[in-house]
Amino acid sequence: MSQEGLLRPGIAQIRVLDMDEAITHYVERIGLDMVGKGEDGRVYLKGYDEFHHHSVVLREADTAGIDFFAFKADSQQSVDAFRKRIEAYGLEVDDVPAGEQPGTGARIGFTVPSGHRIELFAHMDLSDQAPDTRNPYIWKSEPRGMRAQRMDHCLLYGPNIDKVEEFFTQVLDFHLPERVDLPDGTLAIWMTVSNKAHDIAFVNHPEPGKLHHLAFFLENWNDIGHAADLMSRYDISRDVGPTRHGITRGQTIYFFDPSGNRNEVFAGGYTAYKDHPVRVWDHNNVGRGIFYYERQLNDAFLSVVT
Amino acid sequence: MSQEGLLRPGIAQIRVLDMDEAITHYVERIGLDMVGKGEDGRVYLKGYDEFHHHSVVLREADTAGIDFFAFKADSQQSVDAFRKRIEAYGLEVDDVPAGEQPGTGARIGFTVPSGHRIELFAHMDLSDQAPDTRNPYIWKSEPRGMRAQRMDHCLLYGPNIDKVEEFFTQVLDFHLPERVDLPDGTLAIWMTVSNKAHDIAFVNHPEPGKLHHLAFFLENWNDIGHAADLMSRYDISRDVGPTRHGITRGQTIYFFDPSGNRNEVFAGGYTAYKDHPVRVWDHNNVGRGIFYYERQLNDAFLSVVT
Amino acid sequence: MSQEGLLRPGIAQIRVLDMDEAITHYVERIGLDMVGKGEDGRVYLKGYDEFHHHSVVLREADTAGIDFFAFKADSQQSVDAFRKRIEAYGLEVDDVPAGEQPGTGARIGFTVPSGHRIELFAHMDLSDQAPDTRNPYIWKSEPRGMRAQRMDHCLLYGPNIDKVEEFFTQVLDFHLPERVDLPDGTLAIWMTVSNKAHDIAFVNHPEPGKLHHLAFFLENWNDIGHAADLMSRYDISRDVGPTRHGITRGQTIYFFDPSGNRNEVFAGGYTAYKDHPVRVWDHNNVGRGIFYYERQLNDAFLSVVT
Amino acid sequence: MSQEGLLRPGIAQIRVLDMDEAITHYVERIGLDMVGKGEDGRVYLKGYDEFHHHSVVLREADTAGIDFFAFKADSQQSVDAFRKRIEAYGLEVDDVPAGEQPGTGARIGFTVPSGHRIELFAHMDLSDQAPDTRNPYIWKSEPRGMRAQRMDHCLLYGPNIDKVEEFFTQVLDFHLPERVDLPDGTLAIWMTVSNKAHDIAFVNHPEPGKLHHLAFFLENWNDIGHAADLMSRYDISRDVGPTRHGITRGQTIYFFDPSGNRNEVFAGGYTAYKDHPVRVWDHNNVGRGIFYYERQLNDAFLSVVT
Repeated sequence: MSQEGLLRPGIAQIRVLDMDEAITHYVERIGLDMVGKGEDGRVYLKGYDEFHHHSVVLREADTAGIDFFAFKADSQQSVDAFRKRIEAYGLEVDDVPAGEQPGTGARIGFTVPSGHRIELFAHMDLSDQAPDTRNPYIWKSEPRGMRAQRMDHCLLYGPNIDKVEEFFTQVLDFHLPERVDLPDGTLAIWMTVSNKAHDIAFVNHPEPGKLHHLAFFLENWNDIGHAADLMSRYDISRDVGPTRHGITRGQTIYFFDPSGNRNEVFAGGYTAYKDHPVRVWDHNNVGRGIFYYERQLNDAFLSVVT
Repeated sequence: MSQEGLLRPGIAQIRVLDMDEAITHYVERIGLDMVGKGEDGRVYLKGYDEFHHHSVVLREADTAGIDFFAFKADSQQSVDAFRKRIEAYGLEVDDVPAGEQPGTGARIGFTVPSGHRIELFAHMDLSDQAPDTRNPYIWKSEPRGMRAQRMDHCLLYGPNIDKVEEFFTQVLDFHLPERVDLPDGTLAIWMTVSNKAHDIAFVNHPEPGKLHHLAFFLENWNDIGHAADLMSRYDISRDVGPTRHGITRGQTIYFFDPSGNRNEVFAGGYTAYKDHPVRVWDHNNVGRGIFYYERQLNDAFLSVVT
Repeated sequence: MSQEGLLRPGIAQIRVLDMDEAITHYVERIGLDMVGKGEDGRVYLKGYDEFHHHSVVLREADTAGIDFFAFKADSQQSVDAFRKRIEAYGLEVDDVPAGEQPGTGARIGFTVPSGHRIELFAHMDLSDQAPDTRNPYIWKSEPRGMRAQRMDHCLLYGPNIDKVEEFFTQVLDFHLPERVDLPDGTLAIWMTVSNKAHDIAFVNHPEPGKLHHLAFFLENWNDIGHAADLMSRYDISRDVGPTRHGITRGQTIYFFDPSGNRNEVFAGGYTAYKDHPVRVWDHNNVGRGIFYYERQLNDAFLSVVT
Repeated sequence: MSQEGLLRPGIAQIRVLDMDEAITHYVERIGLDMVGKGEDGRVYLKGYDEFHHHSVVLREADTAGIDFFAFKADSQQSVDAFRKRIEAYGLEVDDVPAGEQPGTGARIGFTVPSGHRIELFAHMDLSDQAPDTRNPYIWKSEPRGMRAQRMDHCLLYGPNIDKVEEFFTQVLDFHLPERVDLPDGTLAIWMTVSNKAHDIAFVNHPEPGKLHHLAFFLENWNDIGHAADLMSRYDISRDVGPTRHGITRGQTIYFFDPSGNRNEVFAGGYTAYKDHPVRVWDHNNVGRGIFYYERQLNDAFLSVVT
């Protein structure tokens, strides 16, 4: 009881076009720690406030985008039970052996109706660079760059949003704090397996398997402003912000990594409980829902994905 | 799955010596909304960001302190199941009928080994003053006074802390992000049933059933500073702060209501997961754990309770 | 000898199309205090942190815009001396008698080469609503709305910027912390008579006598965010921001009053000294100079004025 | 006109017991830049936002304290004119030749009635590490440690406060925004030669020539909190804060360098004008004036100086 089953986003594996540029971006600018590099060239990163070995994996490739997004479960029994429910729902499940990523146990993977690969796993080693647990300081060394505390969530674009919602809520036990309903159906859903306002979100989109953004958590609005200062100083391509989302109430900047993947720095956001009513946005207000200050979508929001 | 069983602190019933002074304090200064007054004189309050009917109950009495602290469960089945486990553990459970507080379903109550009455309930009506859920603004009207978003947690003082920890973790399914271990035993425990760094905490103390503080959640360190500005302006008795806790990492001020009950305004705090290691503080560092900047306890911390 | 001559912006008289809407905007939303209403219908306002009788005057009229912008001098002798220098420079000076505005001494007025009326005065009564000076609180009552502390500066559009710079620096003793130089001449100048990064600014523009914005000072970036929250809540027309200016380094939102006059809320900005070198921006960087995060001008910046 | 004569605090020369420890403290922790080291071992420092060669000089000595505090004037003519006025007031003036500190022109020095050496100078070279002035970024590289922007002011302890006030206001053209008046005379005075709430302050004290603190300016309350985080992380001795001063309204922490000199990080503070009334504090309220949240002086405030 309390939080059972899935706990949180555990791994985002991202494709980048140039690894050196990506490392500068994610390590020096966003402020993640580089915790390892694999023989296959993949680079493993984590936020300074994350306990486990890594949360972001960079893979050099010819196209940008996301390979998969994985959730950490509380036990292997939970993963095994989810496997049965996923297969019963009709999705095919495959296995990724322990050690395919350093410090990481066996994972299961499957493709949800939006065309994205989702994975579940129960074990990851604690990082040597984890926060202290014996008389800890709030951080060991001053946070760097945008001072990202952790990989927080992703927003994915693809078709069959209704099916995605059904799958995540009925099979993976997420709940849904917020949604956008257009006259012809659901445009977007925000779902969480915790008390965070969202752990994953989806927007309806004809092309499957696309990444809208991968988000990193900052402490507050002042750090959002500092992140914007850094973007101008280092010529990081900014999409929109500093602003606030009406949806989740988070304070935010969208920007791009050197490969064109959209990132977000995100702060705040309400505490979500499954007994709270779902917040619903309609066609006339979705602009304010996405960008609370601008009160309209920019063109890029619905079209630029990787 | 996801968050099952208990969801969050639901009700704190506090004894105050003078109701008018208490209303000024909790409504005008802390910024709670008064949502009702019962025929027996009890006053019902909630934070502007809380959905359910109330979270704080003020009862006029000859002595200050806390009557009970209640947790909201996700269903009556959960409450029924907890009742069995509580009774199996050896505590006596009594019933509070639906309607004993306005908008509130049946509750069960029991006394934990520290001498505090804890209650569980599954139903509370949504408040007429709940946040909007249809194209919502981040707030309907500008937050007032200290801008408290919600009742957040309490810290209780009493004996038998080891038993309390056992009961909350094994029977009520809390997990324990942080503790203070002295050479002669555990001094204090911070426990949560969610991803908040704590939903309830206990400090070992010879006298049973005492309240150290009831805490209200603010958005950030700037609002902590604004709360301090208000305390000076309105001669509110301040105990300590603005400062930070090493434990939970929350930013904080301790202060007193006109009846002598200690309040806290609290912002920040890490996101807790049950697979994270427990943070442990020892005798030489507990001062920094409690007051991160002062790095020592003040006399009042261990002695002034209601 | 410390600050001599002119001290600061003292009065901005603004034309509004509907006084009731204007009062709601400037008093309830921006948070100014209404200190009086004249028999001719003009309304007098001040920020909670301003000592003198008023700093903003609203005048109902058929067109929006600014009637004049006045600076407070340290003495009548200073005003008299400036009169001689202004006349020697070749501008015609007229007189406004004491009492033309409540609590305000005699003013002199003249039209600078950009077509704007500028006034100087030495005396204004202290306001009954001035900050306390005997054991003062940081404020008497909690700041309201956007929590504007004071009227801060204005940006004016008109021709003959080089002449304006010459006049303000050589005749009125301003200094110039920052400028934008295009290949064909100066686009914009920021000038101050104090240590503020600017007390008045001008942008080159064919039409004389136009107002780009009137600015109000907020405490910090958090209050800038709160102002943006208010704009969405109350459907206030926002132009751009929250963002930062590269020029002055101030944190800012541009928005419009109900009559179409642009307002700014402004926080931060460096401390200016006349022995510091002038910061100069060129054609390729002016976008970043104006909007540090967007790094380009929006269309409205150079075209929408009143 | 505008700001004439003295412009701002220009140099504080501080005695430290161990230079290596001092450099770690002022450079790594407070975040000043080290701009040079003299043959006599003196170390020259400046804030990242200061234009001129240096503002803080560390001199290794057997006792901590302040050697002198110097103000930068707008011209040599101003310095010459002040020399005459100082001598006419009855103080002896001596000369320090150009080059006694690197990049620094001739200075004059004298001892004010509190026993402190004050100096004036008109010329200092701009620093190679000055902020950019051609299309500048808000900073070249991310501020370090406590992110101090500049040396801001000092508070000095010594006798004859009334004489000191007379000298600074009548001879050096300072004005006095704030004072504390006890029944038996003035306890403390805050004086400025600019629009800052104070450039220098004095507290009445029997022993002459003592330093209470040297202050560094931070951007805002969030940076004050960050500074407190750093103090705990690096075991920097903290005196009081984070808190606010009622006097000046600045947000503050007092702490000590490794030699026992008190430092302050200071943010905010009102904008001072000489035509504003003087704020006056009395005996019953001085505690709130100094420490707005604590509302009482700590013992160290009136007794610990170097």
